[in-house]
Amino acid sequence: MAEGDQEGKLLGSADLLNIINGDHENRAKLPVTSSLPMNGGNGTYSYSKNSYYQKQSAGVEREKIIEEIREKLDMKTLSSVSNTIRLADLGCATGQNTFMTIQTIVEAMQRKYKSQISQSRPHDSDDQMPEFQVFFNDLESNDFNTLFTSLPQDRQYLAAGVPGSFHGRLFPESSIHFVHTSFSLHWLSKLPEELQNKASPAWNKGRVHYTSAPNEVIEAYACQFAEDMKRFLNARAKELVPQGMMVMIMTGIPKGMPYSQFPTGMLYDSISSSLMDMAKEGIIEEGEVDSFNLAFYAASPEEMAGIVEKNGCFGIERMELTNPAAWMKGPVDIPSLVTHVRAAMEGMFSRHFGSLVMDELFGRLTHKLQDISDLINSTCHEKVQLFAVLKRK
Amino acid sequence: MAEGDQEGKLLGSADLLNIINGDHENRAKLPVTSSLPMNGGNGTYSYSKNSYYQKQSAGVEREKIIEEIREKLDMKTLSSVSNTIRLADLGCATGQNTFMTIQTIVEAMQRKYKSQISQSRPHDSDDQMPEFQVFFNDLESNDFNTLFTSLPQDRQYLAAGVPGSFHGRLFPESSIHFVHTSFSLHWLSKLPEELQNKASPAWNKGRVHYTSAPNEVIEAYACQFAEDMKRFLNARAKELVPQGMMVMIMTGIPKGMPYSQFPTGMLYDSISSSLMDMAKEGIIEEGEVDSFNLAFYAASPEEMAGIVEKNGCFGIERMELTNPAAWMKGPVDIPSLVTHVRAAMEGMFSRHFGSLVMDELFGRLTHKLQDISDLINSTCHEKVQLFAVLKRK
Repeated sequence: MAEGDQEGKLLGSADLLNIINGDHENRAKLPVTSSLPMNGGNGTYSYSKNSYYQKQSAGVEREKIIEEIREKLDMKTLSSVSNTIRLADLGCATGQNTFMTIQTIVEAMQRKYKSQISQSRPHDSDDQMPEFQVFFNDLESNDFNTLFTSLPQDRQYLAAGVPGSFHGRLFPESSIHFVHTSFSLHWLSKLPEELQNKASPAWNKGRVHYTSAPNEVIEAYACQFAEDMKRFLNARAKELVPQGMMVMIMTGIPKGMPYSQFPTGMLYDSISSSLMDMAKEGIIEEGEVDSFNLAFYAASPEEMAGIVEKNGCFGIERMELTNPAAWMKGPVDIPSLVTHVRAAMEGMFSRHFGSLVMDELFGRLTHKLQDISDLINSTCHEKVQLFAVLKRK
Repeated sequence: MAEGDQEGKLLGSADLLNIINGDHENRAKLPVTSSLPMNGGNGTYSYSKNSYYQKQSAGVEREKIIEEIREKLDMKTLSSVSNTIRLADLGCATGQNTFMTIQTIVEAMQRKYKSQISQSRPHDSDDQMPEFQVFFNDLESNDFNTLFTSLPQDRQYLAAGVPGSFHGRLFPESSIHFVHTSFSLHWLSKLPEELQNKASPAWNKGRVHYTSAPNEVIEAYACQFAEDMKRFLNARAKELVPQGMMVMIMTGIPKGMPYSQFPTGMLYDSISSSLMDMAKEGIIEEGEVDSFNLAFYAASPEEMAGIVEKNGCFGIERMELTNPAAWMKGPVDIPSLVTHVRAAMEGMFSRHFGSLVMDELFGRLTHKLQDISDLINSTCHEKVQLFAVLKRK
């Protein structure tokens, strides 16, 4: 249920944040939008004027990361092998979020190191803090120029950028001590081919996502996700040192619940039906809807745990769903929400359907979401953010 | 003397290559041109249509690097401490040159590793080649996006970009095994302040460089160069592992010879006098000439050796001057040369003097250089490229 407190203005719903954030943090990773940044400039639908959610929700999990480092990361052992501690943020994008998160992690590691050293050598205050080196990773198409010119001047680490897909190797063997990845892993590396195969039971006709689709469609998405995660975990298993930690934050879902019961699923369904309505009216072709799918998958904690256990190289320190929008108050403001969605996602739709029909699409979407606003409000504080902490065995 | 062989067409002179190459390779490093790329596009004066010298002269020193690695780099010792060999190219710019050089170095290191391993363990063919990680460094303002999207697909190394000045720390302590830097170190980090101080004997009135200037001006440049090199060597001393190798290629000059005796010096003098002529005719202000200086310094091998010895952390394996343009044949084609100079350097002049006077400046420059073409031709095969190989003690 939406909270009754009206002091704050509720702009959106909890798990819609994930899709917006996902696009924000990892637009370069979107296979269907690989060269489509968010709306630029400062206009009505620009991302810069419509990223309030993203700012507000950034850092929801930061306290948990600090807690995990404090309680479970053995800085003394890590720094005994190397005098450099190496961190990686996978899917860093260009923004300030990665710098804030990295700063949080580095400071937590420094505190842990100091506390461990003072326990073992209480009279040795001269012990030298290890140096930190941070690798900011995203696809080659990411705007690293903006990332590099935005680096904090007073950072306590040496910085490097690493271009490439995190589904493959990025770093030397046993060289990384801490991996962070936020709102990236729910983007599939590619769309399952059968989604567009008319002869397949997984043909995803008339929909843009697996929400409300037959099991075969959901299964095709799940298989691709499992394959992507397998490659991701294999690469990280090589790169992380023993006892190295990996924090993964992404969209999740409680086990067994259909995605259509969540606001993001409602959004996808409403986009699908808006597009199908437009097809019926001849504004677009029905085949265009059939051939468009969003490469986005939300896993349950149990599903993710199964994939990690199958890989076998990592211990699971923490795996849980949280409400990413506990800070939000009041009912959803649908027009504002759609403006946010448009700022983040218009590019991928306009490339496929053409920019001329975007006003039409987002106008219809607003009406459809307004029609189901009670349903959205009743589900907008679900726990749909997966927070996982793994440790290299 | 210019060689008589007329089979090849000589477009320019040997050490002019250095200034053109210098700008090409390290434009981001130019303090006076930090945001001034070479002329873009495909027009008459574009860099892309006027970079023949650069292509031809790239790789002049590559054979020497291979020789140094083969004869002096102990890959067995380096790889016994770490299973990752880390390389850095400082001042990499965006182009293909850095990839070609790095490829050459990695392959030479792999050959050396194999030969050392086969000598010590002739029957152990399964010995695992170390992984290579390459750090491409340039200033934050460098176009890393172009660099990253141009990375060779079939590279045998993991790649990272490192933004920042090489006059400070870039990498963790004792983490780098090989440093390469080409056509970067002759650019000063800043211009000596006294060059613009009317009360100073180092006031560089009416000139754009220390060529043909009083000793005080030369001394001011030399002091800044020594200070820059001190910071550079201090940082590299921290970062290189013991026995790690550093190859430095830059413009040089034989000890005791005035810069005005070299084609690049003649170019600078001709630019100075062209500008002063324009000032006298009221086309520009004389004060504009006084306040413009090129932050470019050519050191002699003896001078560089002195700086390295004062630092004390490196052994000198090789320090020599070479002719960077042994491939060039025939007399200098002055108009073509000026077009090349313009493509590489127009930005820094137009920012200071305005784009409206560029045709005038480069037209006058062409005439002045044509007047002294015999002199240019008689000196254009001087050894003005400094090749230095250091090893961390």
